[in-house]
Amino acid sequence: MKEKIFTADWIYCSTDFPPIKKGALVIQGSKIIDVGPQKEILKKYPHLQITNFNNKLIFPSLVNAHSHVPMSILRGIAEDLPLMTWLREYIFPVESHLRREWVYWGTKLSLLEMIRAGISLFCDMYLFEPEVIRAVEESGLKALLGEGLFDFPSPGYGPLEKGLELTEELLQGFQRHKKIKIAVSPHTLYTCSPETIKKCLKLADKYGATLHIHLAENREEMEEVQKKYQKSPVELIDSLGGLKENLLAAHCVKLTPKEIELFAKRGARIAHCPESNLKLGSGIAPLPEFLKFGVNVALGTDGPASNNDLDLFSEMRTATLIQKGLKEDPTVVTAKEVFAMATEWGAKALGFNDTGKILPGYRADLAVLDLQHLPLQPDYNPLALIVYSAKAGYVSDLIVDGEFIMKNYKILTLDETLVLEKVQEIKEEIFHLLRKKIY
Amino acid sequence: MKEKIFTADWIYCSTDFPPIKKGALVIQGSKIIDVGPQKEILKKYPHLQITNFNNKLIFPSLVNAHSHVPMSILRGIAEDLPLMTWLREYIFPVESHLRREWVYWGTKLSLLEMIRAGISLFCDMYLFEPEVIRAVEESGLKALLGEGLFDFPSPGYGPLEKGLELTEELLQGFQRHKKIKIAVSPHTLYTCSPETIKKCLKLADKYGATLHIHLAENREEMEEVQKKYQKSPVELIDSLGGLKENLLAAHCVKLTPKEIELFAKRGARIAHCPESNLKLGSGIAPLPEFLKFGVNVALGTDGPASNNDLDLFSEMRTATLIQKGLKEDPTVVTAKEVFAMATEWGAKALGFNDTGKILPGYRADLAVLDLQHLPLQPDYNPLALIVYSAKAGYVSDLIVDGEFIMKNYKILTLDETLVLEKVQEIKEEIFHLLRKKIY
Repeated sequence: MKEKIFTADWIYCSTDFPPIKKGALVIQGSKIIDVGPQKEILKKYPHLQITNFNNKLIFPSLVNAHSHVPMSILRGIAEDLPLMTWLREYIFPVESHLRREWVYWGTKLSLLEMIRAGISLFCDMYLFEPEVIRAVEESGLKALLGEGLFDFPSPGYGPLEKGLELTEELLQGFQRHKKIKIAVSPHTLYTCSPETIKKCLKLADKYGATLHIHLAENREEMEEVQKKYQKSPVELIDSLGGLKENLLAAHCVKLTPKEIELFAKRGARIAHCPESNLKLGSGIAPLPEFLKFGVNVALGTDGPASNNDLDLFSEMRTATLIQKGLKEDPTVVTAKEVFAMATEWGAKALGFNDTGKILPGYRADLAVLDLQHLPLQPDYNPLALIVYSAKAGYVSDLIVDGEFIMKNYKILTLDETLVLEKVQEIKEEIFHLLRKKIY
Repeated sequence: MKEKIFTADWIYCSTDFPPIKKGALVIQGSKIIDVGPQKEILKKYPHLQITNFNNKLIFPSLVNAHSHVPMSILRGIAEDLPLMTWLREYIFPVESHLRREWVYWGTKLSLLEMIRAGISLFCDMYLFEPEVIRAVEESGLKALLGEGLFDFPSPGYGPLEKGLELTEELLQGFQRHKKIKIAVSPHTLYTCSPETIKKCLKLADKYGATLHIHLAENREEMEEVQKKYQKSPVELIDSLGGLKENLLAAHCVKLTPKEIELFAKRGARIAHCPESNLKLGSGIAPLPEFLKFGVNVALGTDGPASNNDLDLFSEMRTATLIQKGLKEDPTVVTAKEVFAMATEWGAKALGFNDTGKILPGYRADLAVLDLQHLPLQPDYNPLALIVYSAKAGYVSDLIVDGEFIMKNYKILTLDETLVLEKVQEIKEEIFHLLRKKIY
């Protein structure tokens, strides 16, 4: 396998080490085999091809642990509305007309956006998920993907049994895929009965798969589940045997300290989505308590219709800022903690254990920040730049399994112009559907 | 005076009107004289030169109502620390060595950043403010500027009397300046005695100037002022005759409902800086109550060392998101409200009454968003794009008083390469000063 060297002004390997000034790393095939100061690395490997990232910063590419990426096609159709008005008058009417093509091209728009935001791995749950899979395979990114399952008929697959069949087919088909894993993805505890959850758990156990669900997102969910089952969502899923290592629970805004402790004890994972939780008025999840109890907590953007972007830099920043403000304490939730959530902890939460750090033996999944962007100057502290100043769009290069997905701002795997054209066409269709309601 | 036409896919004039699809506006010298649909405008003015902003969105350029722009030179030197550690171990030791050149080049870095963020007007208070003024004059931006005044000797001007003299000189010198206004800028009520505040008020009244001060920013200030004067900061400034129309009070995190009502009654202005308030652990200002009582509230980034950027798009988004989350209500603080804060209300707060809207009679202060950036697609709703998806760096053109400051991403008034070189030199000096403390 061919070896090559990347050098850069800075390399930020992981939160375990200080940043390396004038650093270099060595890649063999899809893996990192060495990293250190340029002087040492260039002496140790004298004959390798060198790519020099001048005035740039290499760091482990980011992990978006919860999203509904096809919803980029609905970004901005309605704002500042009560959740039920937003869903019933805008999102559901459009989704009832949902077509495979919308999912495919909406996903591609999101993939382009994530590539430019330095994201190499993400998790998704939506309708027509095979279209998402198709787009992701073209892109070269890594993902944990699942068809959203509901008790009521879905525009994606019809009746629930068909959804479970589809999920099992996907689980079989992608068992040995290098970049894509399949999750069993019941939507919520108020759209899926305990019987459905049990079926999902059985399926997940059979294939050693992740069970991905929205959990304890907002007050409405808490009240509905409590009323129906006399249990909180966490108590309910625990009573069904679902609170365990393969659980990936999105949101968890409304967890009690006792429930957080239980999450930690069971090794269940949380995808924290602070910006969506704010924007939809769901609330502010107790992140400092997640961290205190040692829950494996990852960071997600949620769908771009409720965020309204797929920018994990912004999500890291919001995750720490909001807790500092709320607690009136600038030391609460550090840059290191949110960076770990957006990289190594996120990778672990999605079941990808060999990515998220720049260390020998890890996959060469790398993002490169271009320090010429003004908010990235001066460069005293690479971690502060990544967490507090960087934005989607400041990433010049993205490398996945050692291969360039984006090189010097040019995306190599997807046709950006074509995607933007298709998105405009679909926008006109949706605009027509909703004409009287926008503005 | 030469007239010219700008056309664009969208024009968002102000929160009073729906966006204009395929819009056009007419500029005569420094002013807007007409705006409307392209068809009408092109028929009405058939012989004018047309600049076509294809796939772009024109909106009133943004107003940053509170900052310390030279502090960009300190961005990222220390993070996640208690306020007093941050100030005493990092900011103050560096500021004790502060040189005019650092202020001048730090300001230029910030001016470049603000231009790329669509900001045409800002407010600043710092040391060596004449250096800020010099840089702003070169840039072509508009500003309300003042030397920060303290009871103790300042590295900028020496003893307080010299600071008051400097302020009066500037007030005289800039009385008829088209783009720069001078503010009297006592730092806070805990660094300026009541006697100093009285002198400042007298000076401001003499010249019809704004009095710009930090007020009720955090718990420490509340406690210190209460202990020293048995009054809250608002009560103290009111007792000195300072709570009136020309007051521009930054932060106001800790205002009571009664004090907010008083602010509204007196016509005093607030510069709300949500991201800095979060990051420094100051808290979350009661923005919904400011709006309810009708306070003239503007939006500011605060200094780039505590934000860490000068991105007013991000500030608009944070201002609304955090309140929606806190109140668990997605309808609280609308996109329209934060946009008004960042444009027309901000301009009014800074004493520039003829900018902040795209309407006949207003100054041609315009920003142009490039809709090719992925998070700006699809374009259902221009206001949602501006508030919820846009970022610093997505602005392609900035026009101030009818003149291009940035044209198709090229900044015309400042030398970006030279600024970045100088910033690197200064960084090395500061890095050397703090060497043992960074990381």
